[in-house]
Amino acid sequence: MNKPESLTNIRIVLCQTSHPGNIGAAARAMKTMGLHQLVLVRPKKFPDAEATAMAASATDLLDQAIVCDTLQQALAGCHLVVGLSARKRELTHDLVTAREAASQIVQVAASQPVALVFGTEMSGLSNDELIQCQLLAMIPANPEYSSLNLAAAVQVLAYELRQAALTPTQDDTPAFPLAGHEDIEGFFTHLEATLIRIGFLNPDCPKRLMPRLRRLYARARLEKEEVNILRGILRYTHQAHDKIFPPRDL
Amino acid sequence: MNKPESLTNIRIVLCQTSHPGNIGAAARAMKTMGLHQLVLVRPKKFPDAEATAMAASATDLLDQAIVCDTLQQALAGCHLVVGLSARKRELTHDLVTAREAASQIVQVAASQPVALVFGTEMSGLSNDELIQCQLLAMIPANPEYSSLNLAAAVQVLAYELRQAALTPTQDDTPAFPLAGHEDIEGFFTHLEATLIRIGFLNPDCPKRLMPRLRRLYARARLEKEEVNILRGILRYTHQAHDKIFPPRDL
Repeated sequence: MNKPESLTNIRIVLCQTSHPGNIGAAARAMKTMGLHQLVLVRPKKFPDAEATAMAASATDLLDQAIVCDTLQQALAGCHLVVGLSARKRELTHDLVTAREAASQIVQVAASQPVALVFGTEMSGLSNDELIQCQLLAMIPANPEYSSLNLAAAVQVLAYELRQAALTPTQDDTPAFPLAGHEDIEGFFTHLEATLIRIGFLNPDCPKRLMPRLRRLYARARLEKEEVNILRGILRYTHQAHDKIFPPRDL
Repeated sequence: MNKPESLTNIRIVLCQTSHPGNIGAAARAMKTMGLHQLVLVRPKKFPDAEATAMAASATDLLDQAIVCDTLQQALAGCHLVVGLSARKRELTHDLVTAREAASQIVQVAASQPVALVFGTEMSGLSNDELIQCQLLAMIPANPEYSSLNLAAAVQVLAYELRQAALTPTQDDTPAFPLAGHEDIEGFFTHLEATLIRIGFLNPDCPKRLMPRLRRLYARARLEKEEVNILRGILRYTHQAHDKIFPPRDL
């Protein structure tokens, strides 16, 4: 099955872009590959004449672009969040090639919204942004100089997404619906509260516990029903704990 | 076998580029993918501060770039010449996707120099430039807006070349050496002269005969030894014709 319609379910999220020209060039790159949803998180300058100039005939994407204050807002409703990473991270998520990421994105986007997130020109995605992603993608590049221009990176990913969307696949079995971004974040909030409640996590000295757990669940690509089950477990954990160690009255 | 060393045999040729910023951005795109040979045919402005700025840390490629007066010069020594085409041409060469072209280029570049040629920002390759190519590559794009920025197109092709070079291949049987660009052009000159000599081609009304023949032989991807054979045939054709119809004394 070809999945060109899945491209309409993919939003490109650019975080804190410094140069408006890159926003315009990214819009052009997107449109040439049939992507149309551009979301900007706190761009330094937008709208801007340079963005318009670099967009060429893709100014419609700039006109329709959504500007957000937080990445959280930008990801609302997304069922898979993929971040582009230029380098291996200390505590890394699953890291796949652009081609492999495109294949996974297109599969999910056939029925559900997906976000592909790009960081700043200078330093990529921050750790706070990274933990909101479930998968990291990298463009296999020259190890001696791997710094693609932001719009060039958008072009490569958009290109791979289009190729993946146009490639027939053998496996058309519908997957179970994946959990949405809010479901996932709700789960992590619940999990963290529970871990603190049961004394496993010391909020004054959290170390890297939550990032490690996020990594684990990111790799699992949680389904909606699984989140319900996990949160059910958390609720029960709370309740059982409360029975043994009743919350102190303050 | 991985073939990363084949990247050193690939030159990127930019014809009559209008915007120096695109030359710099193309150099950056090349270097991120491990390509280093940049050849410029009559660039409008080069060197230029904007090219340098857009090249970021790839200014070494600009310093080493070769500037030529003609595409013919730029292709000297190349054994495969591939042109990027945005649109279907009237009398088209073989037209393959960027991915397929990259695979073929990397195969040849494992042992012989190859050129990948890009036309101007506004109109791509001219017909005169196209006939010097043996293969046309296209980037599968949105049919409603397929106009990639020049440097973005270089990025996609450079990316595909790197992926092809890093992909193990089953088939490592060494091909017969392909004919060089000069051999091919020498053959076409010889062929045309012979066709005129024998009266098959009217130089005052050549129609589309030579382009059609070029297309045929481009598709064949001539080997060096085959060119020798074809030129041997042409020599014999000349001689036999001269015996039957001796050249008139003037």
